Parts: sequence; C-alpha cells; structure tokens
Amino acid sequence: MRAPKTFRLHIGIFGRRNAGKSSILNALTQQEVSIVSEVAGTTTDPVEKPMELLPLGPVLFIDTAGIDDVGDLGEKRVAKTLAVFDRTDLGLIVTNFQDFGEYEQKLMDELKDRDIPFIIVFNKCDLHAENLSLTADFDSVKVNYVQTSVATGAGMSDLRQKLLRSAPDDYINRPSILGDLVGPGEAAVLVVPIDKEAPKGRLILPQVQSIRDLLDNDCFSVVVKERELREALSRFNKPPKLVVTDSQAFLKVAADTPPEIPLTSFSILFARFQGDLTEMVRGAMAIDQLKAGDKVLIAEACSHHPIGEDIGTVKIPRWLTQYVGGKLQIDNMRGHDFPKNVSEYKLIIHCGACMWNRREMLSRIMKARQAGVPITNYGLTIAYSLGIFERALQPFPAALELYKSKSC
Amino acid sequence: MRAPKTFRLHIGIFGRRNAGKSSILNALTQQEVSIVSEVAGTTTDPVEKPMELLPLGPVLFIDTAGIDDVGDLGEKRVAKTLAVFDRTDLGLIVTNFQDFGEYEQKLMDELKDRDIPFIIVFNKCDLHAENLSLTADFDSVKVNYVQTSVATGAGMSDLRQKLLRSAPDDYINRPSILGDLVGPGEAAVLVVPIDKEAPKGRLILPQVQSIRDLLDNDCFSVVVKERELREALSRFNKPPKLVVTDSQAFLKVAADTPPEIPLTSFSILFARFQGDLTEMVRGAMAIDQLKAGDKVLIAEACSHHPIGEDIGTVKIPRWLTQYVGGKLQIDNMRGHDFPKNVSEYKLIIHCGACMWNRREMLSRIMKARQAGVPITNYGLTIAYSLGIFERALQPFPAALELYKSKSC
Repeated sequence: MRAPKTFRLHIGIFGRRNAGKSSILNALTQQEVSIVSEVAGTTTDPVEKPMELLPLGPVLFIDTAGIDDVGDLGEKRVAKTLAVFDRTDLGLIVTNFQDFGEYEQKLMDELKDRDIPFIIVFNKCDLHAENLSLTADFDSVKVNYVQTSVATGAGMSDLRQKLLRSAPDDYINRPSILGDLVGPGEAAVLVVPIDKEAPKGRLILPQVQSIRDLLDNDCFSVVVKERELREALSRFNKPPKLVVTDSQAFLKVAADTPPEIPLTSFSILFARFQGDLTEMVRGAMAIDQLKAGDKVLIAEACSHHPIGEDIGTVKIPRWLTQYVGGKLQIDNMRGHDFPKNVSEYKLIIHCGACMWNRREMLSRIMKARQAGVPITNYGLTIAYSLGIFERALQPFPAALELYKSKSC
Repeated sequence: MRAPKTFRLHIGIFGRRNAGKSSILNALTQQEVSIVSEVAGTTTDPVEKPMELLPLGPVLFIDTAGIDDVGDLGEKRVAKTLAVFDRTDLGLIVTNFQDFGEYEQKLMDELKDRDIPFIIVFNKCDLHAENLSLTADFDSVKVNYVQTSVATGAGMSDLRQKLLRSAPDDYINRPSILGDLVGPGEAAVLVVPIDKEAPKGRLILPQVQSIRDLLDNDCFSVVVKERELREALSRFNKPPKLVVTDSQAFLKVAADTPPEIPLTSFSILFARFQGDLTEMVRGAMAIDQLKAGDKVLIAEACSHHPIGEDIGTVKIPRWLTQYVGGKLQIDNMRGHDFPKNVSEYKLIIHCGACMWNRREMLSRIMKARQAGVPITNYGLTIAYSLGIFERALQPFPAALELYKSKSC
C-alpha cells in the first residue's frame, strides 16, 4: 500500500564512502538496512529506499556511492551517482568536523548550481568537537547544518525538523493533475481503452492518479472505454467539465465528444503536472522545422522492454518520417540515462514521465532549454500529428494562446 | 506495470534440495535468478517470482525449500514450505529418473489430496535413461509428466504446453467482480472515501480491480467520495445499475442511495469473487449464536502493520463484544499463517483477501467447513452489525434467499 514514486520527496544522500551515510539513514528510518540493499550497494546502482518518514510523509532515500575514490569505483558508478543529482529534491551531505573539506565543498556547489536545497550533517559529533569558525560561516550565509551522533542519538530530531523545513514548496503544495480544471462537485470523463497489452486487473498509473486527484478535489469521475463513451455521455443531464482520453484513442474520442465539452489527453495533463506545458507546446510546434537528416532524441522514463507497436520506437518515428518526407536520425533512450549535452538534436520528444518526480523532468527541460533544443512529449506530438492540437489545448488558455499566436 | 498477485496463476515448485528446481525455473523464464532471490532462498521463506509466462500469462512461481532434510532446515522452514500447498494453483514436482522415490510419491499425495493439478518434471534426462515401467504406470493413471534437460533444452516447450493444459479452468475463465451485475453499456457507482490513512495518489486494489472489471465487461463506472454521492447521482438521467461502497461509509451511502438502486460493498463483492458468498452469509448469521467466552478467529491476508482504528483488531472486536454483551476470546492472525485445526473456534471472520489468489481463500473456507466452523468476512460482518444486511445482499438473489429463509 505505497504511494507511487512520483509523489515521494527524493532525498539524495551524498558523502565520502566512510562518512556514515548508511548509519544516518538507519537512524532516521529506525531499522536496519536490509541485506538486499547491502548487496545492491555493491553494484553500480545507487540504492533507493522508499519510506514513510515522519513528519514529511512518503519519501525516497537515494543512498549514493561515494564518488571520492574514482579509481576504485569505475566511471560507470561515478556517472550513476552524478545522475542522482538530477532526481534529488533535497540533498543530505554527510560528513564530520574532522573530514570536512574540498570534497564536501564540491558537493555543496553541485547542489547550489541546481537550486537543490541541502542540509550538511556533521555526524560523529560525540567524537569531534565543533568547528566554531566553520559553523559561524555557515550561519552567516544561511547554510543548513545539523550536528548528530548516531551513537548517542543526538541531533536526530533536529535533522527531521530541518528536513521538513527544507522540503521544497511544490512537494508540500503540489499542483493538481486535473482537479483544478473540473471544480468541486463536477465531473470529468476519463476514457481508458483496454488493449491486449494491458495487464489484467489493473489501470495504468496516470489513470489511477487522475481518478484519485479528482476525489482529492471533491470532483467525481466517469471511467469508460472509448466504445461506450457516446452512451456514457448521453446519460448526463448536465455535461461533464472535461473529457480526458488516452492518446491512442484521440480521434475516436474527439469524434464522439460534443465540441462544447473541453477535451484533452492524459499525456497533456502530465506535460503540465510533471513538466512545463508551455515549453512543451513550443516544442511540438518545432516539428514543422524538422528536415531530412536532422537528429531527434526520443526519451522514455520507464526502462521496460517495448511491446509490439511501441509509441516511442515505432509509431512516433514512423509518423515523423512521413511528416518530414525524408529520413531522420532518431536516437531512443530509456530510464535515467540522458545525454550530458543535447545540442546535437533538433528536437527532444519525451514520454509523460508518470513514474518520476517532477524535478527530474524539469531538470531535463532545463538541459534542453540551456542547449536551445525544443522539447515536447508523446501526447502533444500525437495531438499535433492528428491535427487536433488546438482542441487538445482548449482547457489550457495560456498554452492555446501561444499556439495561436505562433501558428498564424 | 504488473498484474496484481490475485490474478496470477500460483505455480508451486517442489522437489528435493538438489533436484534442479532453480534451473528449471531459470530455463522457463530464460533469465538468471537474481542475487536477491538467492539471498532470500537462504531464509525460511519460499521465494516468490512473478513472471509473464508464455502462453499462460501472468504467473507467480513459488520456489520452495526442499523439505527432505528436516534436520538442516528447521521446523519453521518446513512449515513455510507446507503452507505453500495452500496457495498453489498448479504444482511442479522436479526430480529425475534415478532419484524418483518415496519422497516424490509423498509430494504427489499431498497435491492429490488437495485436488491441485501437478506435473512431474523428470529433469537431467540427458543423463538418466527413461524408466519405462514408471512412465507406463503414469500413462495408465493419467499422471502428467515431462522429460526435460536444462543442459540441452530438451522438453522445455513440452513443459510449457503441459502448464497451459493443466491450468485450472477458473484461472482461465475467472468470474467477474461486478461486471455481470451491471451489464454492457450500463453504469456502477463506486464510492471511495479518502481518509487520512490513504496513501497519496493511489486507490486501493479492490477499487482499481472493480473499475477495470467494469471496463472489461463493457460497463462504465462513476467514482465518487461519499460526500459528493448525492450530487453525482442527481447528474444522471437514468439510474446506475449498482452502487458499491467501502464498508466504512455504508450508513451514509445507504441514506443517500435511493432504495430502488441496488447497493453493496467492495468487501461483499470480494466474498463472492475470492471466496464463496453463500458460505460467508451463513457465517455472518452465526454471529447470533455467539456467547460470552467463545473463541473467535479474525484473520487478515495482508501482513502490514495495522494503523489507527484497525478494522480487524479494534472495530470488529469492539462491536462483537457489544453485540454479545460479554467478553469473547479473540485471536488475530495475519498473512499466510493459519491454524491447522480451527475446531476450537465458534466463528472465523476473514478480510476480503484482495491480494490473494482465490485458491488460498477457498482452501481456508474448506478448512473451516471440515471443522464445522462458520466463516464470514469483514464486509458482511459490518453490514450485519449495521442492520443493513438485507439491503447489501439485494444484488445476490441466492444469498438473499438463504438469509431470508433462516432469519424468519
């Protein structure tokens, strides 16, 4: 009975190999790190540990390998640890007064550069006396720090308080997925096609999150397949405020939804919820500038193996090629891997990233923007390719305005 | 993106410690058993491995510890392995022509006694010649067997075919949760209270399964909190065929649902879907026979720690005590542990078992019936205690009939 990863505050734990990262984690979670995690820690992957952390709620601790001794660890491991910065909402730098130095300073710089709040944990304070000039410096520039001792338990509740205070606002006041577009006491219709590939007895995550978001906002939802949509709509004596469809049924749903009812897709809702809708609308419009030979990056958050007519590797490449009227150079990437420099691409097309926290998606959008490369997502690309972009943007006035101003 | 456990065919793998159980499992799944599983294998717990197994679909392999060398393994481990029989839909006995003997015969007897279909896998057939008199015997009594060699790959596709043919019918043609009560093109209203304990961004499993079941049956669902139910019902120009509520909101939902619309609870739907509704209605009516001092067993499938006003440990015991007007002896049990002999109890009250396969629940009902002990579930107990038992059974004519015939 767990919260999905996307809602968890991602807390990255950084520090040298012997800094005591694991004992701080154990003390916070008040249980032993399991054998499974210890084994995983010896691989190249950072260890992820979901937790209900009082008083913060659902968090995901990411315990990284120390990146101080590069020789030992290999480049791959260092790269994996660096990639953790991209999904960290809040950083913990574990050190002590004796060892604090250039290495910790570099970690602080990495986190500051990315605008990620962090807390320095001076552990083993029962063994090392406080460095008064250092803490005075920190106080003067408002760097958050705590002094702890796992051995005596000192400072642990101070650390919890600081974690709560340092948690980013958008973790605590996260925008809603669609409840704000519907309003209390009103209904949204969610169109959920069931294809052969859908696992039995399940709904996919964005659908569940949307139903729950509507409940959280005192709305209600009607969940229906595309085939029964017309029948379901005929049952209302007052039309629903919004129809949301899976992108793959866009055309049929557009045909069956009266034009006065706003229509969009789950994927477009997630462009707003997980990323930046305006930026991604601009990205979709850049499809018009593509020409044969251009490089396009198609990136997917999930690392599962594609099944059948996969959207990212088959459908979108096929349609882009037809649209451009010539061969494109398309790279597909999965999971947390993402190029350091994306400037060689003319366009980046991303999945909805429903499994991630928002920070990782925003961090990719930032990388694209810095390199001057337009970025969009699957749902917007599909809506654009089907010629129903304007209708799909109707619920979002600012994005619609942008589209209209540029397209005429 | 996985199917919930309840829909997976549970395949128990039995055999001596060195019989090659793991290599058969690896060959079927065509991937290495992960380090994590190897570690778990050294504990007392059987290793569970969810898989998409062609052509069967979602299965759960349960790799058991060999129970031949009791001294080594300890009683606890043997008990855990024996408990696997209770949740096995289909058994694999891994052996070879040289070692086949009394031990394998005992496994066959255990499975036969429980009416569990099984397949004998004679592995290492590249090393040991076929025992012709044995296979002739098996052929004559229609015992399923295959000859395999993991080393050469021989017999593996034969094994897959036999797995498909041996899968119980109710795995392939599973009854629906509520779609049959609603009908194509029609609607059910699902009332989902959101309390403080509900994890963010989620719905609980029975709710997701019910929404999906309605889609699979060409129905649609209206998902609403109890507070907005009245408003939602007023929006439709034709009443829904069914209202389903979480048991904790039963009274408010009963008050807000017009009497002509059938009403029940998720828990009662699951008494039918996962178990045997008639048997459990009979069980609920046995509450009237309870008297002070009687022993009652309250069993829960999930082994999670109870939060707050837990139904099984707080709410139901409190209400039963009030109803009986004296102290009862209540035992609470969680997870796969269940007493061998339940005859000391006057009543068993079980959770909805939404996380399990049906076989384990049916196996408990069978145990209760053999011992002559009535068994019911949480939702039926709550409906009974609230005095709305008759209304909650309205969608189920046979169960309602039973109740009416006994209660007057």
